[in-house]
Amino acid sequence: MARTTDGQRAAACRAMAQHLRSASTAILAANAADLDAGTAADLGATALDRLRLDEARLESMAAGLELVASLPDPIGDLVSKDVRPNGLRVARVRAPLGVVGVIYENRPNVTSDVAGLCIRSANAAYLRGSASALQSNLAVVAALQAGLVEAGLPPAAVSLVKDPSHEVAIEFMKMREVLDVLVPRGGPSLIASMLEHATVPVILDGDGNCHVYVDRAADLEMAIEIIVNSKTHRPGVCNAMESLLLHRDVAPSVLERLAEVMPEVELRGDDTARRFSDQMLAASDEDFATEFLGLICSVAVVEDLDGALNHIARYGTGHSEAIVTEDARTAERFLNEVDAAAVLHNASTRFVDGFELGLGAEVGISTQKLHARGPMGLEALTSVRWVIQGEGQTRS
Amino acid sequence: MARTTDGQRAAACRAMAQHLRSASTAILAANAADLDAGTAADLGATALDRLRLDEARLESMAAGLELVASLPDPIGDLVSKDVRPNGLRVARVRAPLGVVGVIYENRPNVTSDVAGLCIRSANAAYLRGSASALQSNLAVVAALQAGLVEAGLPPAAVSLVKDPSHEVAIEFMKMREVLDVLVPRGGPSLIASMLEHATVPVILDGDGNCHVYVDRAADLEMAIEIIVNSKTHRPGVCNAMESLLLHRDVAPSVLERLAEVMPEVELRGDDTARRFSDQMLAASDEDFATEFLGLICSVAVVEDLDGALNHIARYGTGHSEAIVTEDARTAERFLNEVDAAAVLHNASTRFVDGFELGLGAEVGISTQKLHARGPMGLEALTSVRWVIQGEGQTRS
Repeated sequence: MARTTDGQRAAACRAMAQHLRSASTAILAANAADLDAGTAADLGATALDRLRLDEARLESMAAGLELVASLPDPIGDLVSKDVRPNGLRVARVRAPLGVVGVIYENRPNVTSDVAGLCIRSANAAYLRGSASALQSNLAVVAALQAGLVEAGLPPAAVSLVKDPSHEVAIEFMKMREVLDVLVPRGGPSLIASMLEHATVPVILDGDGNCHVYVDRAADLEMAIEIIVNSKTHRPGVCNAMESLLLHRDVAPSVLERLAEVMPEVELRGDDTARRFSDQMLAASDEDFATEFLGLICSVAVVEDLDGALNHIARYGTGHSEAIVTEDARTAERFLNEVDAAAVLHNASTRFVDGFELGLGAEVGISTQKLHARGPMGLEALTSVRWVIQGEGQTRS
Repeated sequence: MARTTDGQRAAACRAMAQHLRSASTAILAANAADLDAGTAADLGATALDRLRLDEARLESMAAGLELVASLPDPIGDLVSKDVRPNGLRVARVRAPLGVVGVIYENRPNVTSDVAGLCIRSANAAYLRGSASALQSNLAVVAALQAGLVEAGLPPAAVSLVKDPSHEVAIEFMKMREVLDVLVPRGGPSLIASMLEHATVPVILDGDGNCHVYVDRAADLEMAIEIIVNSKTHRPGVCNAMESLLLHRDVAPSVLERLAEVMPEVELRGDDTARRFSDQMLAASDEDFATEFLGLICSVAVVEDLDGALNHIARYGTGHSEAIVTEDARTAERFLNEVDAAAVLHNASTRFVDGFELGLGAEVGISTQKLHARGPMGLEALTSVRWVIQGEGQTRS
């Protein structure tokens, strides 16, 4: 893959899209078999919906591959260059990671999304989807491999683990000789298993217990809009607000409005918050630590900016944290001192997303600090090598 | 630490240097106790030499801290900025990693070297040195902490694990709530233990089985100089050449010269190489995979560039790989296709070093692809955060 050209890789992504479209009958039949087996096994409505493919979802997978084909290629980008006093020319150049392992749940669209991102960035994708999506994934990978062959690339550059057992997944996490990086896309049990077993370096796409802090100096109308958007625009995703922090001076007026502007959200407050809103349920310590991924929101009233910073340091997961204030110095302290992948001033937490921030595509949102932090685009699938050119220099 | 200024951190490094100097009597006494215990325990001459401090080594540790104080501060550096169509201002800004855990062997200078790099980059250092250096490390850390206090920084920003037992080391590798990254500086047994136990993300500073390939189109005088320098300048370090690859057209002339220009080096060759040099010992497969770290060098004769690329892909450890050739296209293919942290054309492998490449300091040399690859300077101790500023934008 490292020997392929930008043009070959873009063409491969487009060919993969075309082969997804032309294999739609086979893919939908395989998906129907997975759905039947899942129904028989009482997989549950949410899991079945994630598993389900139809013409529209397949077209959106194909369109995703074409979008990735159109993105600029990070491979070969010059990160820095220098000429040393001894004349050595030293450059740092972006290169592929190599083989990217991805372990994910039962959405078959992840198979083509991840394959496209890996191929575009000159990596190979080694995919381990869930057992319940095996037939769908086999059919999708067959189509993607046909696209690779058409573009003159090795079909093994997109490979699927065909034994979906737990034992093989554990073995996969330890394949240091084969995998250069492992990206888990799943819930807490997958993450825990990775931490226990993986010896391949991991990029964690962890929880988002995201806060919005409404400062004393906030524009309250703006605050209400940001709260409602952060909480209700799409409550089931990692960049949704899970916890609201209110400066005590503005807590009464904000709380008064919330019941009216987002009545569908269940608020769970600390003692002070409940003093201003007697219908509010009491929040436990556990509630403040929970990523609800639904229409529940914890609420704490804080004394000042330091109270908010301490609360976020204690309960935050380092994903996305927002402040609403008109005070530039307060905003600056918040932006500098909160330790999170993304910090926002006067904007909804929902903007923390690869597409919204201009990456053009998203591999995931990293909540770890190593390698990539926050939304990851194609660049997160690269490493940086040193290229050193001389005229016979030796070290004295 | 994230709230400190560049000036405070530089002042802290200088104060740490001064306190090392003024505590020299206590440090050397503690070191003498370690040396006595090590002698009684038959630690061996090499380990005792690594452990030994004297006035000159202590002064070099202090000077190292002053050098780090003089380096530019990476914190706050703008990696990219953009204004989105909705007016959001999006910046990627360098931030500290947080708490950097380092596990190392018995050189007490590593204690101050690592502490200085961490403090300069607004991180805290949590250090676990070897049992045999405990008294020395306690004395060094006490001096460093006195420097931190003098500069108004929290002394806990440089902390030492005081129980040097194996059990506590294993616990240390799993402290995800405390450590943001773990950097092992040690041999294969430490690396294996990290892979088995660590749940904290690791930056591996692995072996260097480095090759020099002399192409058919090489300037042979240049090749001889690069071979001798790469092999003998400092044979015990990771960027020394361990294996020599010769194009078959130049093998006889190069081999003829080697016995004369580096007679102290034991050559172990494949069958073809031995045909041109009958005193040469036979190289086993194991020899080609070995980082000798001494005056031994394996030699293989290859048919062409592809032969060299295949040999490096099979035996290399992804550290540093060099080609000597006057043919620009051959050089370009080698530089693009070898998968290593550093690739060199017409230069000694010994240049792959943080100081030689202009980083000003070196945390280590990473042989992994994630986060940092090759020589690591202060930038490798940072992460990149997203800072997003708006005027009330919400997502539609």
